[in-house]
Amino acid sequence: MRIILVGYGVVGKGVTTIIARRYLEKVKDYGFSPKIVAIADIDGAVINPRGLSPEKLEELKQRRAPTNPISADPDFGHPGMSALDVIESVEAEVVVEVTPVNIKNAEPALSHITKAFKTGKHVVTTNKGPLALAMPALTELAEYNNVYLRFSGTVGGGTPMLEFAKRCLAGDKILGIRGILNGTTNYILTEMPQNRVTFQEALTNAQKLGYAEREPSMDIDGFDTACKVVILANWVMNQKITLRDVDRTGIRDVSLQELDEAAKKGNTIKLIGSIENGKATVKPMEIPKNNPLCVSGVLNAITFFTEYAGEETLIGRGAGSMETASAVLRDLLDIRHKLANRLT
Amino acid sequence: MRIILVGYGVVGKGVTTIIARRYLEKVKDYGFSPKIVAIADIDGAVINPRGLSPEKLEELKQRRAPTNPISADPDFGHPGMSALDVIESVEAEVVVEVTPVNIKNAEPALSHITKAFKTGKHVVTTNKGPLALAMPALTELAEYNNVYLRFSGTVGGGTPMLEFAKRCLAGDKILGIRGILNGTTNYILTEMPQNRVTFQEALTNAQKLGYAEREPSMDIDGFDTACKVVILANWVMNQKITLRDVDRTGIRDVSLQELDEAAKKGNTIKLIGSIENGKATVKPMEIPKNNPLCVSGVLNAITFFTEYAGEETLIGRGAGSMETASAVLRDLLDIRHKLANRLT
Repeated sequence: MRIILVGYGVVGKGVTTIIARRYLEKVKDYGFSPKIVAIADIDGAVINPRGLSPEKLEELKQRRAPTNPISADPDFGHPGMSALDVIESVEAEVVVEVTPVNIKNAEPALSHITKAFKTGKHVVTTNKGPLALAMPALTELAEYNNVYLRFSGTVGGGTPMLEFAKRCLAGDKILGIRGILNGTTNYILTEMPQNRVTFQEALTNAQKLGYAEREPSMDIDGFDTACKVVILANWVMNQKITLRDVDRTGIRDVSLQELDEAAKKGNTIKLIGSIENGKATVKPMEIPKNNPLCVSGVLNAITFFTEYAGEETLIGRGAGSMETASAVLRDLLDIRHKLANRLT
Repeated sequence: MRIILVGYGVVGKGVTTIIARRYLEKVKDYGFSPKIVAIADIDGAVINPRGLSPEKLEELKQRRAPTNPISADPDFGHPGMSALDVIESVEAEVVVEVTPVNIKNAEPALSHITKAFKTGKHVVTTNKGPLALAMPALTELAEYNNVYLRFSGTVGGGTPMLEFAKRCLAGDKILGIRGILNGTTNYILTEMPQNRVTFQEALTNAQKLGYAEREPSMDIDGFDTACKVVILANWVMNQKITLRDVDRTGIRDVSLQELDEAAKKGNTIKLIGSIENGKATVKPMEIPKNNPLCVSGVLNAITFFTEYAGEETLIGRGAGSMETASAVLRDLLDIRHKLANRLT
């Protein structure tokens, strides 16, 4: 399987690491031999149609843009070559899209993905932007071009929430979903009552520790959770919605006093993304502390309400570069598996 | 898909209900049309090669053995016909084995399953006995006869723990497993500190409420958990072990005092089944109350320790007749899916 990697930040680097490291084992386990034939970054690209070796991938990781970008590689570098050109001109089966999230217009990821589809390439992405803004259209475009679109890394990070719903609950019927889908807000809401600090203090602290961005709106205003709700609604509940269909409230107004009052009742307040009775919502909600969904710190959790098996909850780490990279590997294996079945 | 149902207790009845009720929906969702062509119970059988209708299945449910067994049905009854004869003589693709568990010699389930294999039938079972005592041999026999053996209902009841491990963690590597796999013992260990009662009092209470059997050894001495550990070890960790390889301690000796001492440290005591460093163990263990694994009441929970994604925990209801029946449906869908891929 030949792969074009688009985006070379922490997740992109994680993907090269995991592919290089797991290479031999995977061959043994699944007859799966992934090769990265190109990496495209903002400065240019490196291309080797025979596959970049584990040693070369390691070497590239030492380079630092903008002074020493990967496209300066003496063997395979193509300074200034755009990702779109790489996707169009390099032969490969799959494009792995891991550029930064943009929920205004989803670019450049949206163009990368549509270009990949139009040139007959499957796509694995960890980028919520294109999915949040255009998931129904992207799903249709993939189908039209007879290629697969996979995005495990967008929800739950390393925790396979999407696969769980699709693959493990097939005999049942999912009636509703509730999740704690954002580690940053969960960290803040855990810290506030534990350390007796205000929202603002907890946020500043989370920023110092690297759990929150300097521009924290994406997390604390619930956009990140809302993106994940859109993906779940489309993929799991078959609802054709986008970000604008989600009723969204963030956690800026959650006070220590409210948390204390919830605690008196054995409850706490969490930022919950939900799909219930056909409505997609993100808002702070009071939930019982002994509910399995009620995880603390940067953990993520999701509860599926099913017809026969009742409530099923899945808990795991949220986003992290290696967790997200492992989700990319799962998606590549899934595509490989689907292709194998298609060919027989 | 033609099905022979062997065993007609609560799970068996649940299977007929779920198949009758979901029939139309499933046809729509998955092109899957299950038909029960025979039901074999201890008293005899009912057989209709064209499939027992939803109405007939409902009618059979009103009968009560031993005075009014299903085999007395005027249309399709075969009084005294043995399950082995039914499996041998009735044409079907799948045998669903849901007779009572026996961990001494695994009979009669073991004979039913091997007979099914030898006559070319796939098997779905919810019976831990044959798996606990002979899983490596059964797996081989199924492979030799080119049929599938599925058993989702044996671990986690309605919670798809086995599928989760197999299907959702494929890109990762499972290093270890820890689980609360038995609802009865978890109920007792939750009640003791909450209601300030001894082990014996909590057990009596659980028996009154129907959470514990009159002969409770299977649960409280850890046999049930040990069976599940064997199944997980074989299926998920690829270890060829049986019940005798599990180091097992039950909860009879857990005292209220020990629970109180654990509580002082923010911990509690749970009966944990684990596979760590290649060793399969069942024993009461102290775990932190805020660990996701730490569920209360009759819930089940399992944590997979993975190489890349860290700890992933799945929580859901333990065994219940409808939960277990829904697991049977999942297994039937899985076999149907595998057969479809085999044929193309």
